[in-house]
Amino acid sequence: MKAAVVLAGCGVMDGAEIHEAVMTLYAIDKNGGSYQIFAPNVAQHHVINHITGEVMKESRNVLTEAARIARGKIKALTEYRAEEFAALIFPGGFGVAKNLCTYAFDGPDCHVDRVVEQAIRATHRAGKPIGALCISPVLIAKVLGDVTVTIGSDKGTAADIGRLGGKHENRQHGEVTVDRKNLIVTAPCYMLNATISEIARDTEAAVKALMELSGKKL
Amino acid sequence: MKAAVVLAGCGVMDGAEIHEAVMTLYAIDKNGGSYQIFAPNVAQHHVINHITGEVMKESRNVLTEAARIARGKIKALTEYRAEEFAALIFPGGFGVAKNLCTYAFDGPDCHVDRVVEQAIRATHRAGKPIGALCISPVLIAKVLGDVTVTIGSDKGTAADIGRLGGKHENRQHGEVTVDRKNLIVTAPCYMLNATISEIARDTEAAVKALMELSGKKL
Repeated sequence: MKAAVVLAGCGVMDGAEIHEAVMTLYAIDKNGGSYQIFAPNVAQHHVINHITGEVMKESRNVLTEAARIARGKIKALTEYRAEEFAALIFPGGFGVAKNLCTYAFDGPDCHVDRVVEQAIRATHRAGKPIGALCISPVLIAKVLGDVTVTIGSDKGTAADIGRLGGKHENRQHGEVTVDRKNLIVTAPCYMLNATISEIARDTEAAVKALMELSGKKL
Repeated sequence: MKAAVVLAGCGVMDGAEIHEAVMTLYAIDKNGGSYQIFAPNVAQHHVINHITGEVMKESRNVLTEAARIARGKIKALTEYRAEEFAALIFPGGFGVAKNLCTYAFDGPDCHVDRVVEQAIRATHRAGKPIGALCISPVLIAKVLGDVTVTIGSDKGTAADIGRLGGKHENRQHGEVTVDRKNLIVTAPCYMLNATISEIARDTEAAVKALMELSGKKL
């Protein structure tokens, strides 16, 4: 069975964090799973020059840009059906907090993209596990409320998860938080300083925990 | 010591192939090396919508887009100094044949970006190894001529390498071609049908061969 991987664009500052996204796909494949990549068909909040950090005067589409990581093999998130997948996974990157929800701008008062919220709720209702890396746990906490997650050890973000009704656990690289009641797996990734090998380790730990929760059906 | 990794943008159809780029960085890091990412500061030949394959009416810069894969830690290729690095590595993607040289349009009669050509020649002159993945061996053959390389088993591209003065060896995933005289390491990657795990295997095989050629100094 397949995992559904949701990307928020292509690039850490305005989209999906590329190393986390690629290492998630790799962890699924090397552990015997398969994947379908999805993204919401919406405009990016903005486009950031990744050298200067400045906003560029152009507009890009989240689905179109995420297709770069997917090598074109991607579907709009409206096509996601929880019954067709063993797990739903969100790699991180600022795009999660800018394009999938507005946490980067509004904090705990953020809004969540309607299609993203539906995907999370449908997966949760179906009793299937959800993985969330890096900053993505704020999205899960905003939608589901009473969940136990990690974003590593950043105090401000951890406090916000509390304000959203969730519980936060501090974690280091290689450690995941598994909420067995709600079937949520979270890992720090680039929310902590990281080498790319640490990203590979975190994503594989998360994918293996998801596989276990899904009854090895991933 | 460090490897220099040259990216041709961000996305298989008009830039660097993202999986190959990320897996190259991972292979270097996990095997104890370190890296600095470079890209030429030039306009992309064009921008391709990775869902439809069609040209988009916009322009992007190779260095600025490659910075997405590099998380901002990137230098213009004009700053590359062969004496500061143990090896030079080119991941693949159409960007190599569109932005670093014009092979995608002109075949063996292609032109090579001047700064890219200088980087290859300086590394070769310094007696340091060069790695080239996927389609990148055509770039090396165009600049250095009499080299032995693999692009997998595509007959048309293999014939073009002969026209450029090089020799081609057919290779499968996990196999590399090592030209010990010229210190060139090449591997097929996405020039063959591939899973992302096969890309990880090819890039690691290439990086390990480069480490051996460089006297473990990578």
